Amino acid sequence: MAGNSFGQLFRITTFGESHGPAIGVIIDGCPSNLEIDTKFIQSELDKRKPGQSKITTQRKESDSVQILSGIFEGKTTGTPIALNILNEDQKSQDYSHIKDTYRPSHADYTYDYKYSHRDYRGGGRSSARETVARVAAGAIAKILLQQIGIEIFAHVSAVGNINAPRLERNSVNELLQIREGNIVRCADPVTAERMIEHIDQIRKEGDTIGGKISCVIRNCPVGLGDPVFDKLHADLGKAMLSINAVHGFEYGSGFSGSEMRGSEHNDIIIPNASTDSVNKPFKTSTNFSGGIQGGISNGMEIFFQVAFKPVATIMQNQNTVNAEGIPAEIKGKGRHDPCVVPRAVAIVEAMAALVLADHYLRNKTVIL
Amino acid sequence: MAGNSFGQLFRITTFGESHGPAIGVIIDGCPSNLEIDTKFIQSELDKRKPGQSKITTQRKESDSVQILSGIFEGKTTGTPIALNILNEDQKSQDYSHIKDTYRPSHADYTYDYKYSHRDYRGGGRSSARETVARVAAGAIAKILLQQIGIEIFAHVSAVGNINAPRLERNSVNELLQIREGNIVRCADPVTAERMIEHIDQIRKEGDTIGGKISCVIRNCPVGLGDPVFDKLHADLGKAMLSINAVHGFEYGSGFSGSEMRGSEHNDIIIPNASTDSVNKPFKTSTNFSGGIQGGISNGMEIFFQVAFKPVATIMQNQNTVNAEGIPAEIKGKGRHDPCVVPRAVAIVEAMAALVLADHYLRNKTVIL
Amino acid sequence: MAGNSFGQLFRITTFGESHGPAIGVIIDGCPSNLEIDTKFIQSELDKRKPGQSKITTQRKESDSVQILSGIFEGKTTGTPIALNILNEDQKSQDYSHIKDTYRPSHADYTYDYKYSHRDYRGGGRSSARETVARVAAGAIAKILLQQIGIEIFAHVSAVGNINAPRLERNSVNELLQIREGNIVRCADPVTAERMIEHIDQIRKEGDTIGGKISCVIRNCPVGLGDPVFDKLHADLGKAMLSINAVHGFEYGSGFSGSEMRGSEHNDIIIPNASTDSVNKPFKTSTNFSGGIQGGISNGMEIFFQVAFKPVATIMQNQNTVNAEGIPAEIKGKGRHDPCVVPRAVAIVEAMAALVLADHYLRNKTVIL
Amino acid sequence: MAGNSFGQLFRITTFGESHGPAIGVIIDGCPSNLEIDTKFIQSELDKRKPGQSKITTQRKESDSVQILSGIFEGKTTGTPIALNILNEDQKSQDYSHIKDTYRPSHADYTYDYKYSHRDYRGGGRSSARETVARVAAGAIAKILLQQIGIEIFAHVSAVGNINAPRLERNSVNELLQIREGNIVRCADPVTAERMIEHIDQIRKEGDTIGGKISCVIRNCPVGLGDPVFDKLHADLGKAMLSINAVHGFEYGSGFSGSEMRGSEHNDIIIPNASTDSVNKPFKTSTNFSGGIQGGISNGMEIFFQVAFKPVATIMQNQNTVNAEGIPAEIKGKGRHDPCVVPRAVAIVEAMAALVLADHYLRNKTVIL
Repeated sequence: MAGNSFGQLFRITTFGESHGPAIGVIIDGCPSNLEIDTKFIQSELDKRKPGQSKITTQRKESDSVQILSGIFEGKTTGTPIALNILNEDQKSQDYSHIKDTYRPSHADYTYDYKYSHRDYRGGGRSSARETVARVAAGAIAKILLQQIGIEIFAHVSAVGNINAPRLERNSVNELLQIREGNIVRCADPVTAERMIEHIDQIRKEGDTIGGKISCVIRNCPVGLGDPVFDKLHADLGKAMLSINAVHGFEYGSGFSGSEMRGSEHNDIIIPNASTDSVNKPFKTSTNFSGGIQGGISNGMEIFFQVAFKPVATIMQNQNTVNAEGIPAEIKGKGRHDPCVVPRAVAIVEAMAALVLADHYLRNKTVIL
Repeated sequence: MAGNSFGQLFRITTFGESHGPAIGVIIDGCPSNLEIDTKFIQSELDKRKPGQSKITTQRKESDSVQILSGIFEGKTTGTPIALNILNEDQKSQDYSHIKDTYRPSHADYTYDYKYSHRDYRGGGRSSARETVARVAAGAIAKILLQQIGIEIFAHVSAVGNINAPRLERNSVNELLQIREGNIVRCADPVTAERMIEHIDQIRKEGDTIGGKISCVIRNCPVGLGDPVFDKLHADLGKAMLSINAVHGFEYGSGFSGSEMRGSEHNDIIIPNASTDSVNKPFKTSTNFSGGIQGGISNGMEIFFQVAFKPVATIMQNQNTVNAEGIPAEIKGKGRHDPCVVPRAVAIVEAMAALVLADHYLRNKTVIL
Repeated sequence: MAGNSFGQLFRITTFGESHGPAIGVIIDGCPSNLEIDTKFIQSELDKRKPGQSKITTQRKESDSVQILSGIFEGKTTGTPIALNILNEDQKSQDYSHIKDTYRPSHADYTYDYKYSHRDYRGGGRSSARETVARVAAGAIAKILLQQIGIEIFAHVSAVGNINAPRLERNSVNELLQIREGNIVRCADPVTAERMIEHIDQIRKEGDTIGGKISCVIRNCPVGLGDPVFDKLHADLGKAMLSINAVHGFEYGSGFSGSEMRGSEHNDIIIPNASTDSVNKPFKTSTNFSGGIQGGISNGMEIFFQVAFKPVATIMQNQNTVNAEGIPAEIKGKGRHDPCVVPRAVAIVEAMAALVLADHYLRNKTVIL
Repeated sequence: MAGNSFGQLFRITTFGESHGPAIGVIIDGCPSNLEIDTKFIQSELDKRKPGQSKITTQRKESDSVQILSGIFEGKTTGTPIALNILNEDQKSQDYSHIKDTYRPSHADYTYDYKYSHRDYRGGGRSSARETVARVAAGAIAKILLQQIGIEIFAHVSAVGNINAPRLERNSVNELLQIREGNIVRCADPVTAERMIEHIDQIRKEGDTIGGKISCVIRNCPVGLGDPVFDKLHADLGKAMLSINAVHGFEYGSGFSGSEMRGSEHNDIIIPNASTDSVNKPFKTSTNFSGGIQGGISNGMEIFFQVAFKPVATIMQNQNTVNAEGIPAEIKGKGRHDPCVVPRAVAIVEAMAALVLADHYLRNKTVIL
């Protein structure tokens, strides 16, 4: 339990360093008899993989997934699912300069201090490359959620101070088409253009920029989430905060809700006239609660936002120290992302899917 | 594992409903030989207890803690510590009107749907009264952290849109004195006055208001936090989001960090000249990382902010439905807080202490 | 996670020392809407309580259970169930002689060495008095299992070298009546007489004697147990071995199975003609597998046997050392059991019920 | 948490089916800076691998271990260690006859009922081939224990009713040499001859035979084991019972202890004159406690015995049913072990090592 597992009943354990032989994941607790479309897993990985466009890293990884166990004749067997992704485009010599020199705002120093011995190549275990395993596992979780009708959609809602307008009430399929129609993965095409231009400019300056990702979850049944510590939004929050570079999480009214009065913030409950696939007798006229009350989903749309700091590796000289404490200068080498959010959309969706799949299974044990 | 436990090695499990006989907690994994000052536990509980001032609920609870096990002759024995707090001032008849009618933005509906059977009196398990157990357990965690020198300080940084200035670099003892010098628990006395006035006004209108709490952790050793899912800030985030009414969490640069460039956000590493109680060879010239890099503490001050929505119970008529779906009107009865943050300061500190105590113990097993 | 919790989904955490104010348990994960008959919990506790007969300790404890949470209007609410049993008949002065002197084959020395500080009175946490909490929690588990039709029955199958014949195929109700008809709790009245006489003789000699308990589980659905580590019999084994004084566990053919050939040991599968309450298409013509194959219940009767060593406290002088290593002499004081098995029958049943309730819930998540 | 993980702090998760592409394991929580000799891991696997001698299955697997993560420049980094063993000698067509027909005393029926969909080839996940992952992980645990000086030694103590005499007080190295000097892995060469002859005879008859393995743990520090549920022997018991074909576990005086009196069973404590590598002030003049008191190691030799039922696959016709309930006849095909214990010695040692490594780390958090 050294922190490489996530989830209680739909539980993943990831392994692998960025420049080791492989990155992978074991999923324990996936129900049997789910039909697994390997092409879908691959298409999810493709949204995260490097080298997709001019605004992502130019490193090339095919990120092809191998299934080592748990799936037989196209269906899950209820036994552990092991997924393996070989590392290919490793230019480990790109990293010899950081063997003994700590990169600012990276985990080099903290890993070295904690473990005394680390695989420094490309950040090793602290590299965001680890998230490829999360996306692979998240794809299996999404397949599970599709059976229930739960839909998850995330997109880039901000790059630096360029913010996208609120999501229109399109279907998730429509939103996906719009989002995948631009390389920054924003559901508003006009804003997307400005974001891309901005990232491209920053990239040319050898700099990086932060951003935000918004996520909605639709058709979630009422009742997911376990009080009092494992509230649905608490587990979503932890899931998001565990993603590299994330510095903030808010759901529903979020930080702005702290400025509101109860009389405006309260979501009035009304009968639900519509006939959903899920059994939902009530809805609320507003949704400042973000679809979650008392830590339990209430059937309304769940939505949250995640803040990413700028990528730490910049193509500029920076002062630092080496392990002996001697001042040194360092400059990013290799091929890095000027802005992490376009590729992180797949990671946010994957982590959200893992939380929901877990709580869906947990909720099955509440009633005898 | 239905969500009522928190922590891996310093692990708490809480029980109790707001109008049941008692609320309590078992702490499993507290090291032996810690001297426990019962008066300190009580003083922590007193900061959270109702009826403290004109801006908190007028409900009266002595919140006296009973120690049922795990402490012998004033010291922990390494066995489970059970703490029990009897419920006293229960006016259960205050709640008969919500037996069948769902209060807006409360957990009545979601609990009813999930469990089919609930203790509706005062919100039962969904009541923030549950946090009394967290504060009791957090006091034990604080005693553990005192041995290591770790200090935790939280205060009310915002009420509505009244924001406190950034914390001065006073000592934690000085900050505590300032904070406890006003009933809103803000470390800036001038802002505190405005906050109190604002809450009092809102209370008179039968309304409620949200707010924010900021927390700093000082003298944290380098190395706490477990990659990749149990990053220190991810566990802090989950801890905070599990507190009633919390809608957002950010650490270090937080949401504003998403608007920054890497060249301004990166924290340059420099040798540490000062002689701390903890072994810290390096520090950083800025601290946008909030004391955590790669999920592991780097020895700098850890800081984060928590956003609370306004209390849902207001003294105004609101529309809603009952369990049969028939429209109804509801109005808050009983004695409620117009703003939750003054009493939540103790809860934020307690949850932070629990996370740090847990990760302190976890870190002891990284090296043979 | 310092070892005071048991179970994954139906999870108990116990607390309390033998001479502290109380012993208790939190059950987290019990489904909602179970009707709880408090009298049933009490009747289970009465089977374990001291002072029942001439062959048990003469210590008097009413072992009255208090329900602190989780049950409302007679039914579980899905929230943590806290059960509390006050310690009453504490003659702590009986134990002053063991404050600094280690009793042979007790846990005095190992606790002292591990924790450096211990509640020595009556063994503190190492006392079998802790099992009162298990029996209380086990009663709730039994109520859950009654809903499914699962029946558990244990009895004393051996005292010293006096062995009971194999159980007749009576109903569990009949067996219970026979067992409770004698003070040693053996389902064979003739053997019971010999056992009682033997224990009484040994008691008079100031000595103690070991014994065995056999347990059967009937009407267990097919499919309980999780490969590969959480096999049903592995969890039953751990449950039994965690009971004070247990030195051995075997299920099905057990130790004697190791002397058999595959051709005689294999259980031939045949269609099941009978119409059970549970859906069981097949049965086996023999049952050397003890109702479990590959760690998963196969619908046949589950049975196992547990070996208890003799109680360590004897009314005879024994040599030992004190904490400083100086040789000392010690003799049992107070009121102790000459043979533990009559009172342990309730504990074996409780632990078995906890394992089955847990695996019943776990099995609900295997199929979507 | 579907049962494929074992351990709390030194935690393994295994995956893989007998005829899938690979079997493997992730170890999470191994301390950093351990030097890992890959040849040692391989030598452990070689003791378990098929095709070693005339009395084991003739199936050929090289069982070569690949290290996918967690070890860098020959030393552990504190990150998850992933070990992968490719399946090679798969004759899946050997198993077409069991696709729809349930083998007696195998897990075919229970897996099919529980999961509705299974990889039937060679037993899939229920195959003892899964234990190759345990032995690989156990080798890492053994390397950790070597640093502390803990020694583990198991051998075949019985085949059918041929029992080996009690172990002589040789050193573990000497015992290992004797044991590896015969193909049945018994530490008594004379008994070994009789066992080999017996197995060979049974093999020729197309039958199988059960057996027992005894294990000793030496130089264990005082203090390992967590009361009350995670007693050291309870975790050892679960570990052993989770191994395929195990039907019984006893430690110390075991089942025969249940026939003893307290006055003969109690282990008298005496000062420890010898100067061990571990700090042990006391020893006991006898050791019926098997080195564990109150669930905590007392520094004496830990010993236990494990009973294995005969292998279910026999080369004889047996009656059974198919999934539709139609009577069928089945006969073992392929290459199977006539007696499992010679290859299981490595598995018993591996599981014991995993338990001890876990409790060694757990014990580091008991004192601040």
